[in-house]
Amino acid sequence: MGGKCDIGLIGLAVMGQNLALNIESAGYQVAVYNRTTTTTEEFIKKRASNKNINPAYSLEEFVSLLQVPRKIILMVKAGAPVDYVIEGLLPYLEEGDIIIDGGNSYYRDTERRVRGLKERGIRFLGTGISGGEYGALHGPSIMPGGDESAYREVEEIFSKIAARAEDGPCVSYLGEGSAGHYVKMVHNGIEYGVMELIAESYDLMRKTLGLSPAEMGGIFREWNEEQQSYLLEITGEIMDREDQETGKPLIDLISDVANQKGTGKWTAQEALDLGVPVPVITAAVNARYLSSYKEERGEFSRLFPAPERKTADRDFLVALEEALYLATVTAYAEGMDLLKRASSEYGYNLPLAEVARIWQDGCIIRSNLLKQIQRIYKEAGETASIILSDEFSSDFAGKIENLRRVVSLAAVEGIPVPAFSAALAYFDSLSARDLPANLIQAQRDYFGAHTYQRKDKEGTFHTDWQDIKNV
Amino acid sequence: MGGKCDIGLIGLAVMGQNLALNIESAGYQVAVYNRTTTTTEEFIKKRASNKNINPAYSLEEFVSLLQVPRKIILMVKAGAPVDYVIEGLLPYLEEGDIIIDGGNSYYRDTERRVRGLKERGIRFLGTGISGGEYGALHGPSIMPGGDESAYREVEEIFSKIAARAEDGPCVSYLGEGSAGHYVKMVHNGIEYGVMELIAESYDLMRKTLGLSPAEMGGIFREWNEEQQSYLLEITGEIMDREDQETGKPLIDLISDVANQKGTGKWTAQEALDLGVPVPVITAAVNARYLSSYKEERGEFSRLFPAPERKTADRDFLVALEEALYLATVTAYAEGMDLLKRASSEYGYNLPLAEVARIWQDGCIIRSNLLKQIQRIYKEAGETASIILSDEFSSDFAGKIENLRRVVSLAAVEGIPVPAFSAALAYFDSLSARDLPANLIQAQRDYFGAHTYQRKDKEGTFHTDWQDIKNV
Repeated sequence: MGGKCDIGLIGLAVMGQNLALNIESAGYQVAVYNRTTTTTEEFIKKRASNKNINPAYSLEEFVSLLQVPRKIILMVKAGAPVDYVIEGLLPYLEEGDIIIDGGNSYYRDTERRVRGLKERGIRFLGTGISGGEYGALHGPSIMPGGDESAYREVEEIFSKIAARAEDGPCVSYLGEGSAGHYVKMVHNGIEYGVMELIAESYDLMRKTLGLSPAEMGGIFREWNEEQQSYLLEITGEIMDREDQETGKPLIDLISDVANQKGTGKWTAQEALDLGVPVPVITAAVNARYLSSYKEERGEFSRLFPAPERKTADRDFLVALEEALYLATVTAYAEGMDLLKRASSEYGYNLPLAEVARIWQDGCIIRSNLLKQIQRIYKEAGETASIILSDEFSSDFAGKIENLRRVVSLAAVEGIPVPAFSAALAYFDSLSARDLPANLIQAQRDYFGAHTYQRKDKEGTFHTDWQDIKNV
Repeated sequence: MGGKCDIGLIGLAVMGQNLALNIESAGYQVAVYNRTTTTTEEFIKKRASNKNINPAYSLEEFVSLLQVPRKIILMVKAGAPVDYVIEGLLPYLEEGDIIIDGGNSYYRDTERRVRGLKERGIRFLGTGISGGEYGALHGPSIMPGGDESAYREVEEIFSKIAARAEDGPCVSYLGEGSAGHYVKMVHNGIEYGVMELIAESYDLMRKTLGLSPAEMGGIFREWNEEQQSYLLEITGEIMDREDQETGKPLIDLISDVANQKGTGKWTAQEALDLGVPVPVITAAVNARYLSSYKEERGEFSRLFPAPERKTADRDFLVALEEALYLATVTAYAEGMDLLKRASSEYGYNLPLAEVARIWQDGCIIRSNLLKQIQRIYKEAGETASIILSDEFSSDFAGKIENLRRVVSLAAVEGIPVPAFSAALAYFDSLSARDLPANLIQAQRDYFGAHTYQRKDKEGTFHTDWQDIKNV
């Protein structure tokens, strides 16, 4: 065995390189393989030189470098490439070997792979990894799910390479099957929501107060003192950044068409399947789509100039800070609600307090909020909504006026705030003693005989609404 | 051949019965079959007695009653039942026979069936039928897609049983494969949007003006004079309806938990897949989900009482009428935009002017708006958005203040208006010269090296955002 590698990693794009370097620096010997040989050679020559990292130039060689049971992390593009690599590995693997998919795989693909590989004696871990390039190198948040015995074999490595929060390393076994990638998907959905809310806050500040990027950078930093949110933190830094060529604020030069890679979309679609409303997250996905309607936007903005704007008072900033806080909590609430529903729907039995714990460092949505959320689930177990907890309910009761003010001002001034208004509508819908869904039920019964329930008695009812006209 | 039936129909729930009666009254001889024999017997004894309708009590007998090529309409529950019936029929069918699925099938199932049956020599038409029970009997809107030669064989029957609009019967061949069911899905998505907007209008009227159902009935009727919208029309009637037992307005007794059958959800999910924003439709689906959160709603409404409400002026009604009009146009605009994208994505080559024409009578979303939409597509062909047309753009320019007023007032008064605010955010996003998506691109490049485009030059750029901190 001597000299064999502790673990192998396939896929040497930046995330894969960084993760390999992270594992090596934790004291492990790592085998690496990449489909394009030159990438491997360059990695070994430069970033991995003089490190305990061994290159392989075929899958067979790669597998032969590994200790048994073999532990292989895939850092390849989600989708078909994952299946190709697995198929390529299988001839060289033995029963009990472990494959860990560290990409952003769709959870249903992971479910299929866990089952399919189990039949072939291979243990599979679908593992969400968040933290971007920096996190991969210095400590990501790791969300593993799948074969639990396999997790126990890599637990030590994962614990050493993960980010460290107050209560320990940001990794925890989350459940069987696709639990890990499901949690990662929802993590990314929340990420979409928070990013959009910060973007809307930026838009409101520049359009109602005419603030410069540098001024806004200062404000975001100030807001972040309490929240300690990674996304707020980097927003502050982005605002400060000057373009090297022109000396202008770089943010002003970046095109306002947003791209995406699918995890936000999956979250929104999945929530629709499970009947869980996640309107802030969905609004964020739609906002990116709308930004890409470049041609239509040109025509709309010519035809419909923005309403004349009064400059808001500076105390609008206080309202905006609190509105952003409440709407951000709402994005987390939606995501946690989706996880709760999925946990029972798919039998994951997700440890929600642990989810909130391992998101506290390393990942993109890390923030002080997660400490509160962890406490809520630790103390209350499964809770109806984190908004109802003591931790957050007094914030909502006391600060909701500010969210009302922001949405109302944006509506009047013609500044699009799809995520802020979705957060408010979510709160007001849940808080309404009476929703107008009774009318929807009446309409459905009218045209489709879909029946309805009554408030005053049990049972299912149908009214022959048209009998006046047709009999 | 003498005595053989012109067409057969399987599935004698109310929609199937009504459609059979409609076809018979158009002068055709109809064979009917239902899995449960007693349903068939009762239908023949009562509603179909002394009519040119022939019962069959096995699929073999049913097929033997039909003229060749056989034309068979399925009116069974969408999903697996459609496949069961098709499999049951196949042994008795011959090459060239025609199966017409008249249910709300998921368009991807239809695509699979069109292809699968073609291989077996059977011609398949996935056909959306809208109009509820009343429409099925008196003239529905019919949306057929699939094998065009099959459509030509049933065109005469369909034309006779369909509703009749100004320019002819509400039926038109829409395209190959799943085109018909796709159009029906989007029809239902728009239906969800319009229903929710009317429900929010009702909620605003009762909560800000304290109007009674009877008063609101009068207002909906008045609003409908211009719009001639079926959904507004039945809302007026619903408001007037008294509960026979208690004498109270029936609407006040109906539970405010809305159900659904999936077509709205499919539309929202499909739009996410194609990258088409349909926020009003999606908000409507989510509003139904939220209404079903009964337990949470109880706790929220105890913890968070609604803000104190000032009674709105009566002239708020004028604003609300125009806001409802604009938001309703937005729901149609979203649906048409999705059809346009799907048409090129799936090669349907949808005749959008025809779609707007056949929705003008018989179906649930019929309204005067569709005449305008038909004109737009007739004159302009593929248009960027119907909102940009001369027909609608002056309405938006002149009336958008009213939508702003409604959303703003609802935000302050704590009345949930997810669909109204989604409509406004959609309009304001498209009309914004600058969206804050530049910040989202910067964030994505910061944490994930996803790169960005610039406004001032071509190309793809990446900034090493962290170099200040980490080097």
